[in-house]
Amino acid sequence: MKYATEEMREGNTTLSLINQRISANKFDTTKIITEQLIQELMEYALKAPSSFNIQHERFVIVRKSEDKEKLKIISWGQQKIADAPVTIIVLGDLDGHKKLPDILGRSVKVGIIDDATATIWTDMANKMYANPSMARDEAIRSASLSAMTLMIAAESKGLVTGPMIGFDPVALKKEFAIADHYVPVMLITMGYSADGNWPQKPRLEVDEVLAFDKGREF
Amino acid sequence: MKYATEEMREGNTTLSLINQRISANKFDTTKIITEQLIQELMEYALKAPSSFNIQHERFVIVRKSEDKEKLKIISWGQQKIADAPVTIIVLGDLDGHKKLPDILGRSVKVGIIDDATATIWTDMANKMYANPSMARDEAIRSASLSAMTLMIAAESKGLVTGPMIGFDPVALKKEFAIADHYVPVMLITMGYSADGNWPQKPRLEVDEVLAFDKGREF
Repeated sequence: MKYATEEMREGNTTLSLINQRISANKFDTTKIITEQLIQELMEYALKAPSSFNIQHERFVIVRKSEDKEKLKIISWGQQKIADAPVTIIVLGDLDGHKKLPDILGRSVKVGIIDDATATIWTDMANKMYANPSMARDEAIRSASLSAMTLMIAAESKGLVTGPMIGFDPVALKKEFAIADHYVPVMLITMGYSADGNWPQKPRLEVDEVLAFDKGREF
Repeated sequence: MKYATEEMREGNTTLSLINQRISANKFDTTKIITEQLIQELMEYALKAPSSFNIQHERFVIVRKSEDKEKLKIISWGQQKIADAPVTIIVLGDLDGHKKLPDILGRSVKVGIIDDATATIWTDMANKMYANPSMARDEAIRSASLSAMTLMIAAESKGLVTGPMIGFDPVALKKEFAIADHYVPVMLITMGYSADGNWPQKPRLEVDEVLAFDKGREF
C-alpha cells in the first residue's frame, strides 16, 4: 500500500479510504448486509448536497435471488450482481423539485430559513426544472453526489462497492416497477470483498485535469 | 452536535465528516489555499470511479480577485465567490472517452488488464458515447462523483465547500475560455469557514427515499 500524503501516513481515515477505494467485481457470497445497515448508510447518502436541498436521490435495494438474476440479465450478465448480497438501483427524481414546499417547510420549521425565502426558492426551482434537460442534469448530478457519499460511507464500514452504468434502463424500469419520472443513474453492487478484485486502476496525473485561472484543452 | 450512530460516537472520522458537512456560504476572507493543497485534493478527486476509468472530470481554479469578480457576476452575484480564496469550476469532458487508448494503456502497462480487453472497452465506449445524450449524462455523473470525493477530502483537511449550480454556463465558458466539449457541472467555492454559516438543513427521512425489491412512488 502506497500513501500519497503525510496525512495518510498519520492515519487520516477519510483520505486513506478515498485513496484505497476500488470498484469491486468480486464479492463474498456468504455474507449478508442487514436492513439496518442499509438504512444507516442511506442516512449518510442523504447528507450529500443538492440544488435547493431537493435531494433527488432514490434507492431500490435488490436482494432476493430471483430479483438479482433478473437484474443480472438486464445488466449484460455481470456476475457480481448475483454474487453480492445487494445491488442498489440509484434513481434521480426528475420531479424532485415538486417536493420543495414540503422539504423547505422543514427548514422553515427549525428556523434556518423563513417562509419568504422558501417561497422564492420554490418559484426559482419550478422555473429552472420546467426545462426537462435541466431537470435531467440535476437528477443525475444530485443522485451521483449522493451515490459517492454512500460509497465512501460503505467503505468506512468495511464494505466494498461496484458502481455500474452498464444496464438497459428501459428493461430496468419495467422489471422493477420504476415510474418514468425516475432516471436510473447507476447501479451499485455492495457487499464484502472476496479474493480476486483488481487493484485500483492508474489515474490521470493531476496536471492532466487541472488548470489555473483559465480553461484549456486538457 | 448530534450523532446518528454508535460508530460516530466512537469517532469514525469519515462518517462524522459526512454527517457534519454543510454547504458553506460564509468564508474567511483572510485565509488562502496553497497550490500544493489544491493539487493534493485533486489527487483524491481523481480517485472517484468512472465508466471505463475515463475520468471525465476537469477543474479550473479561479483565485485572482478580478476573475472572482467576473465569476461572481456570472453566478448571479453570489458573494461567497468573492469572499472565498478559490472557486473551482468543475467540468465534465464530453469527449473523455477519446482518451481511453491512453488511459487504458496505463492499466495494461501495470498488468491490470490486457491489450485485448483495452481494445474491447475502447470500442464499447466509443459506441456508447457517440450518443450525445449518453456522453452528457456520463460527463455529469463522473464529474459529480469526483466533486463529491473532492468535497469530502476538503472537509477532512478542515476546509469547507459550497457547491453551486446557479450560474450562466454560456457566459462561464466564454469568460474562462472553456471549449464546448466541456460541460460545466458545478462550481465549488472552497476555503475556511467564517461565522454565520447556516446549520445543515433537515434531510428527508430514509423511508422517504428507500424501497426494497421494487420501485414505488416515493
